[in-house]
Amino acid sequence: MGFDLELDERTVQWRDRIREFVEEFVIPREQQAFALGLTEELRTELQEEARRRGIFAPQAAAEWGGGGFRLDEAAVLLEEAGTSLLGPLALNCAAPDEGNIHMLTQIATPQQQEQYLRPLVAGRVRSCFAMTEPAPGAGSDPAALQTRAERAGRGWVINGRKHLITGADGAAFAIVMAAGGHDDGTGATMFLVDMDTEGVRITGHASTIDRMMIGGHCQLELRDVFVPDERVLGEAGRGFAYAQVRLAPARLTHCMRWLGAARRTHEIAVARAAEREMFGSRLAELGMAQALIAENEIDLHAARALLWQTCWLLATGDRGSESSSRTKVFVSEAVGRIVDRSVQLCGGLGTTDDLVVGRVYAEVRAFRIYDGSTETHKMSIAKRAVRRITAGAHA
Amino acid sequence: MGFDLELDERTVQWRDRIREFVEEFVIPREQQAFALGLTEELRTELQEEARRRGIFAPQAAAEWGGGGFRLDEAAVLLEEAGTSLLGPLALNCAAPDEGNIHMLTQIATPQQQEQYLRPLVAGRVRSCFAMTEPAPGAGSDPAALQTRAERAGRGWVINGRKHLITGADGAAFAIVMAAGGHDDGTGATMFLVDMDTEGVRITGHASTIDRMMIGGHCQLELRDVFVPDERVLGEAGRGFAYAQVRLAPARLTHCMRWLGAARRTHEIAVARAAEREMFGSRLAELGMAQALIAENEIDLHAARALLWQTCWLLATGDRGSESSSRTKVFVSEAVGRIVDRSVQLCGGLGTTDDLVVGRVYAEVRAFRIYDGSTETHKMSIAKRAVRRITAGAHA
Amino acid sequence: MGFDLELDERTVQWRDRIREFVEEFVIPREQQAFALGLTEELRTELQEEARRRGIFAPQAAAEWGGGGFRLDEAAVLLEEAGTSLLGPLALNCAAPDEGNIHMLTQIATPQQQEQYLRPLVAGRVRSCFAMTEPAPGAGSDPAALQTRAERAGRGWVINGRKHLITGADGAAFAIVMAAGGHDDGTGATMFLVDMDTEGVRITGHASTIDRMMIGGHCQLELRDVFVPDERVLGEAGRGFAYAQVRLAPARLTHCMRWLGAARRTHEIAVARAAEREMFGSRLAELGMAQALIAENEIDLHAARALLWQTCWLLATGDRGSESSSRTKVFVSEAVGRIVDRSVQLCGGLGTTDDLVVGRVYAEVRAFRIYDGSTETHKMSIAKRAVRRITAGAHA
Amino acid sequence: MGFDLELDERTVQWRDRIREFVEEFVIPREQQAFALGLTEELRTELQEEARRRGIFAPQAAAEWGGGGFRLDEAAVLLEEAGTSLLGPLALNCAAPDEGNIHMLTQIATPQQQEQYLRPLVAGRVRSCFAMTEPAPGAGSDPAALQTRAERAGRGWVINGRKHLITGADGAAFAIVMAAGGHDDGTGATMFLVDMDTEGVRITGHASTIDRMMIGGHCQLELRDVFVPDERVLGEAGRGFAYAQVRLAPARLTHCMRWLGAARRTHEIAVARAAEREMFGSRLAELGMAQALIAENEIDLHAARALLWQTCWLLATGDRGSESSSRTKVFVSEAVGRIVDRSVQLCGGLGTTDDLVVGRVYAEVRAFRIYDGSTETHKMSIAKRAVRRITAGAHA
Repeated sequence: MGFDLELDERTVQWRDRIREFVEEFVIPREQQAFALGLTEELRTELQEEARRRGIFAPQAAAEWGGGGFRLDEAAVLLEEAGTSLLGPLALNCAAPDEGNIHMLTQIATPQQQEQYLRPLVAGRVRSCFAMTEPAPGAGSDPAALQTRAERAGRGWVINGRKHLITGADGAAFAIVMAAGGHDDGTGATMFLVDMDTEGVRITGHASTIDRMMIGGHCQLELRDVFVPDERVLGEAGRGFAYAQVRLAPARLTHCMRWLGAARRTHEIAVARAAEREMFGSRLAELGMAQALIAENEIDLHAARALLWQTCWLLATGDRGSESSSRTKVFVSEAVGRIVDRSVQLCGGLGTTDDLVVGRVYAEVRAFRIYDGSTETHKMSIAKRAVRRITAGAHA
Repeated sequence: MGFDLELDERTVQWRDRIREFVEEFVIPREQQAFALGLTEELRTELQEEARRRGIFAPQAAAEWGGGGFRLDEAAVLLEEAGTSLLGPLALNCAAPDEGNIHMLTQIATPQQQEQYLRPLVAGRVRSCFAMTEPAPGAGSDPAALQTRAERAGRGWVINGRKHLITGADGAAFAIVMAAGGHDDGTGATMFLVDMDTEGVRITGHASTIDRMMIGGHCQLELRDVFVPDERVLGEAGRGFAYAQVRLAPARLTHCMRWLGAARRTHEIAVARAAEREMFGSRLAELGMAQALIAENEIDLHAARALLWQTCWLLATGDRGSESSSRTKVFVSEAVGRIVDRSVQLCGGLGTTDDLVVGRVYAEVRAFRIYDGSTETHKMSIAKRAVRRITAGAHA
Repeated sequence: MGFDLELDERTVQWRDRIREFVEEFVIPREQQAFALGLTEELRTELQEEARRRGIFAPQAAAEWGGGGFRLDEAAVLLEEAGTSLLGPLALNCAAPDEGNIHMLTQIATPQQQEQYLRPLVAGRVRSCFAMTEPAPGAGSDPAALQTRAERAGRGWVINGRKHLITGADGAAFAIVMAAGGHDDGTGATMFLVDMDTEGVRITGHASTIDRMMIGGHCQLELRDVFVPDERVLGEAGRGFAYAQVRLAPARLTHCMRWLGAARRTHEIAVARAAEREMFGSRLAELGMAQALIAENEIDLHAARALLWQTCWLLATGDRGSESSSRTKVFVSEAVGRIVDRSVQLCGGLGTTDDLVVGRVYAEVRAFRIYDGSTETHKMSIAKRAVRRITAGAHA
Repeated sequence: MGFDLELDERTVQWRDRIREFVEEFVIPREQQAFALGLTEELRTELQEEARRRGIFAPQAAAEWGGGGFRLDEAAVLLEEAGTSLLGPLALNCAAPDEGNIHMLTQIATPQQQEQYLRPLVAGRVRSCFAMTEPAPGAGSDPAALQTRAERAGRGWVINGRKHLITGADGAAFAIVMAAGGHDDGTGATMFLVDMDTEGVRITGHASTIDRMMIGGHCQLELRDVFVPDERVLGEAGRGFAYAQVRLAPARLTHCMRWLGAARRTHEIAVARAAEREMFGSRLAELGMAQALIAENEIDLHAARALLWQTCWLLATGDRGSESSSRTKVFVSEAVGRIVDRSVQLCGGLGTTDDLVVGRVYAEVRAFRIYDGSTETHKMSIAKRAVRRITAGAHA
């Protein structure tokens, strides 16, 4: 009778080990990463230690070498990993690999899984997801896809341009979304494209507010790239449907990681406010600071409660488009507020890398945009709500 | 493994029956209540029907005649009851009786329970909770209590003034909070005071924005009111501790009911926006309206997720002061936003009683103030957060 | 060189006299009005005293008996009048008469002005503006107008229904907006319709959150109402253009009056917070309260600065549609926030009529809806901004 | 009669020339500066062209080589300069030099003005303002000043550490704030300290979210720095009073420049939204985008109206502490919102340097913190409001 939100023993164990790992091993390497950027050396060092501690790839299926946790359990673990900007990479549960792992587990053929998924889960290679295009191509509106795949013998020839492809530089392969796939040229298809295929070229790196994504945000050119049939992911023509498979859980894992980052900035800010003297008392005792602290606490717990509920829903089989949309908007906006307030609480130092909060502020901005911007989600949430309510169902 | 947020069968049955009851019986009586006020006749009519349908007092303990639902299950049922402003009264789960029922169940002696609790659960009488005082007395700061109880033979003599005592007019008894109780005159004590006791007088009704509380918001005078020892609720001197017993769950049941009211206004507004033509399209298809609708959906689900999580926590034994504070602030603010947006979506008609949303707007304002104002809770949330975080625990 | 925002001597004199009048004469009559409603007797009493003090109808043209102040000066005076909910009525600068006075001054024939405008400015009669219709008629979208005027001999026959017509009950005449007027039946026309004309009937009063509008918010039926040609306001067919004449300044005078009301609630709340003890200090010294106070101050001054600038723009000949839209949205939202915070600062008492702030809270809600809702204005502001910016002009 | 907010001819001329300069000369150099940072070469190039066009140092007094505009006129010009992040530097009206120019004009001796002010106005040298200290020193609370000046012969010896000193690297001199100055060691004093004085050392650069401040944000060490009496700025011991002289106008010039930057991001976002196709229509025609655009317009105009009014107030002799506090909070928060919405409107590209908006987002964050954080100002605004209102004066 009643609900059950108790964490089971194994989840608690992993969470505590992740926490220890982040504190002992990851955080001491942060300032170096802020100063020099994320390198493959650092990635290797972090991932080896995570593997050694038995906390690698918690969200990946056990049969492929991951922790095998259900989505609602992963919520706890990825939040913990997210408390350092390097944590998700260290645990191999960072975007975009984590989303690709999920999709390959769901959709890829056994052979593709052996070839692409297994090394990806193991952290032996990195990958990227090549969907977004420069205007007037696919951005918030996937239907605007311009990159095209044409039938060519026992394979396909892809032409097009992509941009803001996170992690492309240094990736072993890309999952490329291209228009076409049905006999009449409609639909869209996903392809597993090795980055060293002829015709694939990284033509530039975007200079963005954030800097902590390994492999950057790249422009990609695909010129007459030939991909054989066995590298079609799932079935040709079903790309849009597959994008949904990736999307809902990928949104939620973003929420988990960023919730951890927000919690970290909040804790840094509170610890500092508890020490700092101002106007004759501790900063943390001034009502103006208390308001910021309390609003952070409230946002943090509301975001987590909504996230956990939605993860449970998806874990128990619901497709969860509607609930994951709502959750993505709420959590991304709440996280944005929490980090912003944390910066404010820290004053001038809050805008520096030293206190970490300034770095998180810069890194997190795009979260309200990618995987469906707040506004795009709101449009879809409203449409579904109108349909549901006019059909007599309740919110 | 993982969480379980599935509703059990009995909860679903009660919820559906409450929904049917509200739609078939309660809503048709709303406009009459808006026009004429809440009368004892209407209360009796509503409660008889609710009893007949077997959905009376869901939150009250089964041994005292209630539904015996756990707090996290009650969250579902009281939300449903709250979809009409008359619903909670109809089901006898409205403030202040519902909170008094809870407290009497926890604290009263068996004899007090027979005499006061049983008829209260049955809806044979109403009660009130007399704590708040005019300045400089007890408001947000209970320590400022001015009403005093002095030892007098085998009982106590109470003197003082109370105000904004909801439901006092027509109540059979009041639970009166008064300073004193320990031998040295410190502490505070709760008394069961029959309203027809000599010296108890209702001296006025506040004219407030809301109008739908049976018995109004009264000024109360207690002049040399004698209360025998057997009417001390629990032990003398422990009043402040008992207030906490009442407070945390009472906050949450307010959240449940008002969440239902907010959901109702949202559904009314959406249904209307789906019909209304404006600038050549349905109002519900205009982006400005979609934004309001989506924000309502998000607030509604975030509020419910947080509320359910907190109810589960309390149901499983946690004292929940911290989480119930956070939840009260978030839900009351979210509900305020939802109702306000619903008014806005309905345009001019939104400010009228006809569409119900205008009435809810007026009724709900005080929710951000009573049972701890947003600001008072934030102060306490911040203090606890600082203690927790500086002690090395995580949010 | 530079700007000049100095008030001239006559404006300062009127402002000070209005302030004195409100304090000495109007405020002492508020509680009576809250309890019993606005009566014609009270209106007469208030207006006689205002006339006696030489502060009547400040915004009306001098030749028609008003103060003859320019719009930017009127901003100062109507704010002052607005500090009591009864002040604008007392000074005959309340909606809807004030807007009708403006329109009749601009558009009416000399004969219409003698017959309708002069007694209106003098406060001998009241009027109403009958434009809004129940769905699917004219609301936010005037083009949906359903009430029609048909040519009939030397006049017109009007049929239709109006609702939410403020002040209709007890008004001597209505300015009725009806479709038709051009030979082909297009366009819209405004008519001066005596309320005692055959076929004009008040069919109901809306029960709204606010209660302080004399004459209420009425449903109006027009059945075969004959209006002779000389009661066409201005020219037939130009009704939509005339509505614009009324609209921009009417929005701004609403802003002025409500800004005064908001200032009053803020001052009440601050005065109370300066006295009230809580948690061992004055409420006004707690940071949470300071935040509310400071945010009120900022909103108040930003609203006033924007309002003054826009009034200056209109006073110097700009049509001001864009700036009055922006100003209406900002001021109505800011006023809503200020009054809400003032309620919050006052705690439980803040929701009562006693402290006035609760009454203002209820009265002011519709301001974000009427004369163009926030959302309707935002749509128009965005469209104009896009046109302006893509044409290379700057904001 | 009425206000006058008309710009005079000379202000319009300068504004138009600044606009042309920014478009033709400054903006084409932005991407280079974003990529390579601000160099002295770029500064020289920009300033030479600005001098050539006769628009140099508009806010500086004419006798020292500036434009000699009054503060309310400068509001127009510095906003225009601010439309490029490089504009204020190009026109020599950027922080911190602009604030130092103001202070030296007000306080310095004729000899100090010849030696320090004249070359500073001319752009021959740069300067910095060394007040902020690492905890537990002077930040939001100037009273916590730890750097001390001790009497030593015909001068002073200064010891202490400063941090976040903008522009220190490459500056010719610093205005250093140090405790001491009165005979009893109380008070604070400002010193003109040449950066090549023995004992002055830049010990580090903060790595901050923003990157476009020439000379960075430096840590400064002052070890036994001897400063002769003639380098005391104004009088010894009056440092706190002088800080106020600098503060109020410096806050306002920040508001001017950042308002320009915000306007620029808004215009970029609108232009892009007017072109971009999404879901079958122009982005700018979607209600969600219209809301962002309209809110930007409203914030922009409200911020400007408040800023102009406050500048007029200071220009006409008011000390303006209260109004400049309110203005700083409102404008910095509004600017933050505008830039954030502009990023959101631009989607993924909005987070890049390419569209400029991403860069402005990073640069502007600290504005809500420096020169008095939002929270510090709110505390002071509330205190003053309580004093004013309890004394019977009106807001």
